[in-house]
Amino acid sequence: MSSYKEILLVNRPEDGKIGPHLFETKERTIPEPGDGEILIKQTYMSLDPAMLGWMSEDRESYIPPVELGEVMRSSGVGEVVASNHSDFAVGDKVMGMTGWTEYLVSDGSGFNKLQDGVTEEMALCVFALPGLTATTGLYNFGKPKEGETLVVTGAAGSVGSIVGQLAKADGLRVIGVVGSDEKADWIVNELGFDGAINYKTDDLEAKLTELTPDKIDVFFENTGGPIQHHIFNRMNTHGRIVVCGMIADYQSDSPAPGPNWIPLIKKRITMRGFAMPDHWGEVPQLLEKLTPYVKQGKINYRAHTIEGLSNAQKGLNMLFEGQNKGKMLVKL
Amino acid sequence: MSSYKEILLVNRPEDGKIGPHLFETKERTIPEPGDGEILIKQTYMSLDPAMLGWMSEDRESYIPPVELGEVMRSSGVGEVVASNHSDFAVGDKVMGMTGWTEYLVSDGSGFNKLQDGVTEEMALCVFALPGLTATTGLYNFGKPKEGETLVVTGAAGSVGSIVGQLAKADGLRVIGVVGSDEKADWIVNELGFDGAINYKTDDLEAKLTELTPDKIDVFFENTGGPIQHHIFNRMNTHGRIVVCGMIADYQSDSPAPGPNWIPLIKKRITMRGFAMPDHWGEVPQLLEKLTPYVKQGKINYRAHTIEGLSNAQKGLNMLFEGQNKGKMLVKL
Repeated sequence: MSSYKEILLVNRPEDGKIGPHLFETKERTIPEPGDGEILIKQTYMSLDPAMLGWMSEDRESYIPPVELGEVMRSSGVGEVVASNHSDFAVGDKVMGMTGWTEYLVSDGSGFNKLQDGVTEEMALCVFALPGLTATTGLYNFGKPKEGETLVVTGAAGSVGSIVGQLAKADGLRVIGVVGSDEKADWIVNELGFDGAINYKTDDLEAKLTELTPDKIDVFFENTGGPIQHHIFNRMNTHGRIVVCGMIADYQSDSPAPGPNWIPLIKKRITMRGFAMPDHWGEVPQLLEKLTPYVKQGKINYRAHTIEGLSNAQKGLNMLFEGQNKGKMLVKL
Repeated sequence: MSSYKEILLVNRPEDGKIGPHLFETKERTIPEPGDGEILIKQTYMSLDPAMLGWMSEDRESYIPPVELGEVMRSSGVGEVVASNHSDFAVGDKVMGMTGWTEYLVSDGSGFNKLQDGVTEEMALCVFALPGLTATTGLYNFGKPKEGETLVVTGAAGSVGSIVGQLAKADGLRVIGVVGSDEKADWIVNELGFDGAINYKTDDLEAKLTELTPDKIDVFFENTGGPIQHHIFNRMNTHGRIVVCGMIADYQSDSPAPGPNWIPLIKKRITMRGFAMPDHWGEVPQLLEKLTPYVKQGKINYRAHTIEGLSNAQKGLNMLFEGQNKGKMLVKL
């Protein structure tokens, strides 16, 4: 009987800060799957901004917090290493809500097999939360039209990079806001964005004005921060603002105020906050929309992969500090 | 040949302040209507918050500004006193865009006859901009459901009072925000609102919490001001915010910031700014929706009527200072 590690949430990030004191690593004996169950050995685990919400006390959020003493929540990919379930065979690669653990037993519900040709990284970078979130937000609420201009913040991030590429494929002018020149280079030269703004170094208003001569029809917000006001003020009549993330403010006790609402009236703007848990029922249609773009090679991605479950907490900090280049993954 | 007065816009309210220097009164000779034309003697004229926008330079607004030297724009009701138009007879009462004038000649386009039993005040208070705006905003964007809670600001105003009464008739809990105890008394005891908050004297957060035990599903914003943040923070999941007016901020050079957008995501809120000019094509359906409520006696209104075209500018100031009790009208 060999053992494995799992990581429990034991404290809440009261001040929004994530550190080792929040977690406790436990060594467990690898269990046998029961009747109708499978044993999964996790190989890749996803780190996502939503995790800060899952760790927090806030009962108003869209999914309940992780209880103290529970394995920290996450999605991931693993290999079936033992199966008493007729739908799963040993060797199957599956994706689902795995948690911060090296092994887990499941009755298979919520787990889907990876399709042929889909690697573990592609599964977590494109066909999991990032791609589904990008597709939902862009098409349900952004309603992009050929020839329009879209600005996306967090444009080198897991969601933003897909939003921008989908919009480019649909014939929009796409400008991305990023936090480094390296990311700016990547989204323009590798992903084909029409322009990039480095929010840390550029003159935000001047650069935005230069890059959006026809102003902005769709604003896909992943970050918050001071550039929000500039983008907001440059919206066109009947513009759409999709509010997907505010990572710049999640860890703040006193989040920065937003813009005054007068332009919403003058320009008859629609704003929509959303979160994927409302849209799980639409996943088949979302994948139907997303998959052709991927097959046509229009969706590039990059994973920022770190090694070892014990580094998960550090990876989460990198994500909130914007140090990651691409979708944060942990390889187990 | 007798004469009449009209008032031209000759300056723009650069600092948002409205005064006599913006206008010039002209004495004109009453014209004869040409072929296919009617001569209208205006009897009641409407004063509306939108007028500040119409007077301003802002070319980004939803309708073009009044040009300098033009008769100031307004809607009103008048009597046909001469007609060379087969659809209109002398004595007909008509409503349309009249302008700040005692007489005008029109080819009849944009003018509709008042229906039987509809007084001039009712026409301008309910079946003109206020009622159409309330109906559009509430039903197109607020999507009220029986048993939900609606909070409306500017609740004793021309739009807000109708929004609240429609929502009450539909079985919602309705709380209104007003600027005086007299207005609070009117909306609760005369209009049947479930509660009122005096934003000038009440403890906003405590009173709002007390009056909305099930929190807020629909926020119909007519004013802006500090209570906006409290209402925003008390929205329910999947709440709808209808942004119709921001009268508290229209005259400010540096409008107060709005709330941070994090709650839009957590609660998946939809916000929609709107203005009637986008919806003129829907007027028949809007009237079909609104008229039964009026016929059932469910829509009360009060006009705040001042006398004489020469007092129009003073009336406009009263409106922006919240001194009016009911829909501002000028009786000519």
